[in-house]
Amino acid sequence: MKIRKAKPKDFGAIFRLMNELARFEKLTPPDKKAKKRLREGAFGKDPLYKILVAEHKKEIIGYAFYFYTFSSFLAKKTLYLEDLFITEPKRRFGVGKLFFNELKKIAAKNKCGRMEWAVLEWNKSAINFYNKLNAMPLNNWVYYRLVF
Amino acid sequence: MKIRKAKPKDFGAIFRLMNELARFEKLTPPDKKAKKRLREGAFGKDPLYKILVAEHKKEIIGYAFYFYTFSSFLAKKTLYLEDLFITEPKRRFGVGKLFFNELKKIAAKNKCGRMEWAVLEWNKSAINFYNKLNAMPLNNWVYYRLVF
Repeated sequence: MKIRKAKPKDFGAIFRLMNELARFEKLTPPDKKAKKRLREGAFGKDPLYKILVAEHKKEIIGYAFYFYTFSSFLAKKTLYLEDLFITEPKRRFGVGKLFFNELKKIAAKNKCGRMEWAVLEWNKSAINFYNKLNAMPLNNWVYYRLVF
Repeated sequence: MKIRKAKPKDFGAIFRLMNELARFEKLTPPDKKAKKRLREGAFGKDPLYKILVAEHKKEIIGYAFYFYTFSSFLAKKTLYLEDLFITEPKRRFGVGKLFFNELKKIAAKNKCGRMEWAVLEWNKSAINFYNKLNAMPLNNWVYYRLVF
């Protein structure tokens, strides 16, 4: 089992896992145009996000999408974890923990003050996992979205 | 009254406003080192965030810090508003609305699918303002933070 940077050729496997995540989160998976933008966003000039994958016996079994945001009051970067997904049959073997260890290393190397992410409130197993990492829920903040 | 991009020389005024925001949000304002990082983060090579200011009769009366994040499922950028602050005596005259109009223009120009931000749950006047913008609170998501 290893966690490594994704390569463009991993996208087939990543899209299959994104479909599995979409079913799990009851969201619409990316369509053909969105898949094109995802490829360009990760590997074009001026990348918008970064991808780690978990590889086990030459199979991609999970992925993490992340990028950097900025905390004005710390005046430091934040590593923001946009997606973390491990295919259902490969869960509960510590893959999530390996992803977090790698992300914490990357965050430290990039002088981040924090790492942040969001979880659906009904996803109790993920919430249990995050609580064991000593992460804290930002309960006193309300997040807002304006859709165009 | 105009909303414009900040210049390096605006930082004196911006720091005074950040102190006022810190008192309001009961947070610690940036110290000397953090102020240096804020200057570099906005105007160094490889900027980490962008600043708009509201200028009224040559006085800086408010600021917005923002940057771009990425939505994996939209496969589009999000304009993330890290801070929006208007000095207390200049509120209720539509300055917040002008900031949002400008930010929506910038988001459209940059092909963003969304705009997002966070508000402290006790900040009822801000929440009323955001609700009037047709923004929606992301009530089914829990945000987590890991501090290093």
